Amino acid sequence: MPSVSHLSLPALRFIRAARVAHLATAGLNSQPHVIPICFVFDGKYFYSPIDEKPKRTSPTELKRVINLQANPQAALVIDRYSEDWKHLAYILIRGTAKILHRGVAHAAAVRRLRRKYPQYRQMAIHTRPMIQIRPVRLILWGNP
Amino acid sequence: MPSVSHLSLPALRFIRAARVAHLATAGLNSQPHVIPICFVFDGKYFYSPIDEKPKRTSPTELKRVINLQANPQAALVIDRYSEDWKHLAYILIRGTAKILHRGVAHAAAVRRLRRKYPQYRQMAIHTRPMIQIRPVRLILWGNP
Repeated sequence: MPSVSHLSLPALRFIRAARVAHLATAGLNSQPHVIPICFVFDGKYFYSPIDEKPKRTSPTELKRVINLQANPQAALVIDRYSEDWKHLAYILIRGTAKILHRGVAHAAAVRRLRRKYPQYRQMAIHTRPMIQIRPVRLILWGNP
Repeated sequence: MPSVSHLSLPALRFIRAARVAHLATAGLNSQPHVIPICFVFDGKYFYSPIDEKPKRTSPTELKRVINLQANPQAALVIDRYSEDWKHLAYILIRGTAKILHRGVAHAAAVRRLRRKYPQYRQMAIHTRPMIQIRPVRLILWGNP
């Protein structure tokens, strides 16, 4: 099982190039939850802001936060679909999550997110909580 | 909270057009797991085969089955990413899953999968278990 520090360059590029990942959480009742998220990876942690994309809110907006506060275990998958199934690939990250409200890591993640996603430059993600995921296990499938 | 029978035509089209969904499960230890899956929807249930895409196996191939046998709760998300965030959308389905090994529903799902994905016509999914998900709750976000 490779650790983050052993990720190959192609795997790192695959992670960095992805615009979207899918984050799974589960409350204490073991009910799984999954949503698409925007994210950045700083080589050590994954970060995803608790934004409210284009002002719509939904019951799920907070569900992941409620779940992570009850149960910090998270799974994140970054994948590529192709009609040529020889090119299917994913990287599955299992880790533990923390909700950051402010601080140096929060501010650095905001800067990194705004570099990757210009859309965030107009959004007040610096005032919003941020999910930080520390990878514990990585599973690579296919050739990411 | 709409039920499957109240899905709008655009939402149904969005589900039917999607080539990939993301399935989250959780074991009894509440460790979430998530992977991309191929699927079909027959208007009532979602089906996804336990295949081994291009012959690679991985520890996660069976993880979802092990999880679902211990805890049938599942979450499935079908989403659209766009750089124009006004067009982001997803449908999140929470439901309960069963593993089918044979029978009429299994055979019908195999046929439906092979119509949607020509790739499956060369694969022995008719001899493999099939995940059947009965939707219990639907959450629509954006304009699927």
